[in-house]
Amino acid sequence: MRISRKPTGAKFFELFTEIGANIGGGVELLREFVQAPEADRVELAARMHALENAADDATHAIIEHLDRSFVTPFDREDIYRLAARLDDVVDHMDAAVDLATLYRVGELPGGVAVQADLLCRAAQLTAAAMPRLAEPQELTAYWVEVNQIENEADQVYRRLLSELFNGERDALEVMKLKDVVDQLEAAADAFEHVANAVHSIAVKEA
Amino acid sequence: MRISRKPTGAKFFELFTEIGANIGGGVELLREFVQAPEADRVELAARMHALENAADDATHAIIEHLDRSFVTPFDREDIYRLAARLDDVVDHMDAAVDLATLYRVGELPGGVAVQADLLCRAAQLTAAAMPRLAEPQELTAYWVEVNQIENEADQVYRRLLSELFNGERDALEVMKLKDVVDQLEAAADAFEHVANAVHSIAVKEA
Amino acid sequence: MRISRKPTGAKFFELFTEIGANIGGGVELLREFVQAPEADRVELAARMHALENAADDATHAIIEHLDRSFVTPFDREDIYRLAARLDDVVDHMDAAVDLATLYRVGELPGGVAVQADLLCRAAQLTAAAMPRLAEPQELTAYWVEVNQIENEADQVYRRLLSELFNGERDALEVMKLKDVVDQLEAAADAFEHVANAVHSIAVKEA
Repeated sequence: MRISRKPTGAKFFELFTEIGANIGGGVELLREFVQAPEADRVELAARMHALENAADDATHAIIEHLDRSFVTPFDREDIYRLAARLDDVVDHMDAAVDLATLYRVGELPGGVAVQADLLCRAAQLTAAAMPRLAEPQELTAYWVEVNQIENEADQVYRRLLSELFNGERDALEVMKLKDVVDQLEAAADAFEHVANAVHSIAVKEA
Repeated sequence: MRISRKPTGAKFFELFTEIGANIGGGVELLREFVQAPEADRVELAARMHALENAADDATHAIIEHLDRSFVTPFDREDIYRLAARLDDVVDHMDAAVDLATLYRVGELPGGVAVQADLLCRAAQLTAAAMPRLAEPQELTAYWVEVNQIENEADQVYRRLLSELFNGERDALEVMKLKDVVDQLEAAADAFEHVANAVHSIAVKEA
Repeated sequence: MRISRKPTGAKFFELFTEIGANIGGGVELLREFVQAPEADRVELAARMHALENAADDATHAIIEHLDRSFVTPFDREDIYRLAARLDDVVDHMDAAVDLATLYRVGELPGGVAVQADLLCRAAQLTAAAMPRLAEPQELTAYWVEVNQIENEADQVYRRLLSELFNGERDALEVMKLKDVVDQLEAAADAFEHVANAVHSIAVKEA
């Protein structure tokens, strides 16, 4: 019989669940941003930034709790890494929204909405995985699916690049849009890194 | 007398050796691509992509074997990291070839062939090191040489950038070529990260 | 009573202190470069490159000492990681200076001097922290401040991007300046990663 990890880890699992929910909120905001008229972007970007600050606070709370905990459900460095990788997801979404606003990029290519949809699927899987961290071995399906989504996101990203460079846009416009699209691609990669951090915990516990 | 690591690690060393050979194949394909007429690029890129899929499968096999192994030749997380870093090498070579095809970049600057040659040397050293992972302390020369190659690659990369920006190309063409050249530079960095992962194992075993 | 970490770690703390001082020198050179007339850039870039070589040697000395040490003040991999992250800082400053020289970028936007000033503050905090690594728990203020500086650097970076793309520069010039500015932003991130590596050691020791 396995010894349950729940008692010692309850507070950690709670904090990770909170970050998972934060990320879910961030992705919804991102989808709204992508569809919104330009006039609404400044306000939506401000809301994303507030959410990024909240995610920073939650990450900080995990690290503080780590400082104070004598017993931890996993290796300290794995908790640390998972928190850092989750933070990366929000950072990239915030950067995408911020750059799109700063650069006044005008209408976004249709592929950006597809990127946002894929991030949404990854966020839902991640948010659902966080409350189940006590049994990391049972999260194999989550890890596999997020990896598949990242592969899909790669395809969408490459098609977007191809479209950006098709000669219809001038170079400065391409550079601006590419910065936005690159941040969303980095967010998809970051979801994969979160899943890898979870999987790496599962491998250690095997 | 040191206890041999071979019995417990045989399957791992076999799988890492297979990935090393894969990378060797990828680098050969890259050199062929760089020299090939544009008409052949789509087919060569498809072959690179098949090889990248094979590398993914081999990485997956290592992680599955890790899940099932009670005793491992090194720390689980080191095996995991080494597999991930090897995967990065193939990913960057695949991205370089894919972007060059997607962007229809035309003739590649001469420095790209030099980048491919340096990657080839790094790949040969890496492929030769993988079957010898059981004695990581004896791989110091490998680590030092890959670091030197990465330094050379840096120089070649900077000269290439200087050539790209010399005013003979328009901005969109520069952006496309820079994306390709950046991926090859990232592949050289990735070989260094592989060597660092091996060295980090050796340091722990010291 | 905690057992002092000083006797076993003396040589490591000495080497990290040396690297901290190196970084301080690098940042001074960077500020000089940013203010210097274009005619002086080649020579200043050569001095930065010499300093980067010295930093490589110091990193190598740490790793060699790690190879030879039976007892280490922290986990071997944490010493390794901290050395690697410190090396990244110098690499990014060297790349910024090298690219600015290579590209003959002309006058740098005013925000670049602000980037250099922020790097200077991060370097001073880092140099002051290195001799105190024996008590990582007392470096919380250092970690918090470097994180704040990185946030400020992010703001400065975004404003710089906005200025670069305001339509007064042609696309090739924007690309060149963006490469330089990106490397300085990466240096600020690298200081944060150094602080995170220190914090991660402190968390483990808690």
